Amino acid sequence: MSATVTFDLNRYLQERARFIDDALERYLPSEQERPQLLHRAMRYSTLSGGKRLRPILVIAGAEAVGGTAEAVLPTACAIELIHTFSLIHDDLPAIDNDTLRRGRPTCHVQFGEAVAILAGDALFAGAFELIALNADTAPSERVVQVLHLIAEASGTRGMVGGQMVDILSEGKAVDAETLEYIHLHKTAALIRASVVAGALLAGGSCWQVEALGTYGTKVGLAFQIADDLLNVTGDPSKTGKAVGTDAARGKATYPALFGVEASQKRAQQLIQEAIAALHVFGEQAEPLRAIAHFIVEREG
Amino acid sequence: MSATVTFDLNRYLQERARFIDDALERYLPSEQERPQLLHRAMRYSTLSGGKRLRPILVIAGAEAVGGTAEAVLPTACAIELIHTFSLIHDDLPAIDNDTLRRGRPTCHVQFGEAVAILAGDALFAGAFELIALNADTAPSERVVQVLHLIAEASGTRGMVGGQMVDILSEGKAVDAETLEYIHLHKTAALIRASVVAGALLAGGSCWQVEALGTYGTKVGLAFQIADDLLNVTGDPSKTGKAVGTDAARGKATYPALFGVEASQKRAQQLIQEAIAALHVFGEQAEPLRAIAHFIVEREG
Repeated sequence: MSATVTFDLNRYLQERARFIDDALERYLPSEQERPQLLHRAMRYSTLSGGKRLRPILVIAGAEAVGGTAEAVLPTACAIELIHTFSLIHDDLPAIDNDTLRRGRPTCHVQFGEAVAILAGDALFAGAFELIALNADTAPSERVVQVLHLIAEASGTRGMVGGQMVDILSEGKAVDAETLEYIHLHKTAALIRASVVAGALLAGGSCWQVEALGTYGTKVGLAFQIADDLLNVTGDPSKTGKAVGTDAARGKATYPALFGVEASQKRAQQLIQEAIAALHVFGEQAEPLRAIAHFIVEREG
Repeated sequence: MSATVTFDLNRYLQERARFIDDALERYLPSEQERPQLLHRAMRYSTLSGGKRLRPILVIAGAEAVGGTAEAVLPTACAIELIHTFSLIHDDLPAIDNDTLRRGRPTCHVQFGEAVAILAGDALFAGAFELIALNADTAPSERVVQVLHLIAEASGTRGMVGGQMVDILSEGKAVDAETLEYIHLHKTAALIRASVVAGALLAGGSCWQVEALGTYGTKVGLAFQIADDLLNVTGDPSKTGKAVGTDAARGKATYPALFGVEASQKRAQQLIQEAIAALHVFGEQAEPLRAIAHFIVEREG
């Protein structure tokens, strides 16, 4: 019987998401501690039932090279804090002006703009505290490599840079090259960093890290295409987000540029390429293979 | 002749500020690189002729334990990026709504709110990239310690937490304990982290680091009192900022709570305590002693 048949992805995702949620609960500052309102906002936005895809990818990256979830847990949570920080800031009135996220009012709607800006900032700072904590279970040299990787993937050569080009492109005719730039930076950079960070901390070799980097970029691009497709064809009761907002806003998306069918095809192709990059790994990479399929097949 | 007499602080500050400015110029992303507008905003706010007090304190902290400016340069610049990030976000309409900074329009006035939010975020991310780079000239174990120190001093148990309590206290009667909380977190935490980071990277011992931590906290508190005094009695042509804005806004400040004279006295006392903490150091800490005096005597 092959591993592909026996591997239970739903169970894997649920167990690891619970593991991450428990750790986030512990790592996030208490609502009893000062400043209470800030901590309430940080917890509200982080502990809102996300899929925890990025931190799970940190864990799966570690497992692919023979590591454990426990040994990369602080960095896995750090990545989720960075993701949450980016959602809070992106939702702000001056940026995407979104009012609904994971089926609940966005942070600035719930707590006001000042608190939302500072909650995002504090989550971003907290992420780097967690990365430092990972030196308890991984060599400091590796932690420093991961620090560089994640900081770069978050900043102007990554997520923030991609978001900037994304909003500057709103309402404009965007070419395929700019769309690729946005997707690579806004989404794929942090997803790639997640898988690679797990592998680095768990002692992965150069060629393992490189293969997982390719996997991460492909899966990250596919994820954004799938996300854009859900904004066209998704069910708000499953996505927790309004539908059709990208088109209304003149957002640069894959379906807007190439149509729904070509987008689905491109996402599938990227997933095949991602899985091909894993050929050097055995059964230990089975979660990564299953996650790749899940990313384009999910409904929310 | 004693070192106190011969030490030329102005020359020291000017030389080190130029050294920092040259490095920031190199480290900041180019305006020719995409996304150009974001990079223009990051450079506009960072390269605007600040005093570079915090990065100079990183260098002076390293020198106090026998290290060099070169060996701590990336972290020194990282601290300046964090300081700039905090200024950009604090100036936003939803927070302090300031329009003038260092004699020029604030980032959001010049580039719009979305760009200002993202420029702050990108500077914060860039700071952590620079900290990782410091592993080229310092042991990784020390870099990880510095990472933890600076992340904590920036986040909810530091700068961002202090800023949150500061704006929540606007227009309210604030007790001395809350005022101390605000000053310790909003200002002193990052100033303390600057001196300590320099000493850690340069191989300082536990007791050296502890003494410099005490120095940093005292100097940080004195700095904020001096800043609040300048907002009452300062000359806008020298501070580059409007005067009387704290009082107009009902900000919790030392002069508002205790009066101008008691504030001046308290700042002087803190400086004496800061210098006393340096008794374990010889001539190598002369810059730190001179900077302590400068902090309460400056006019801008």
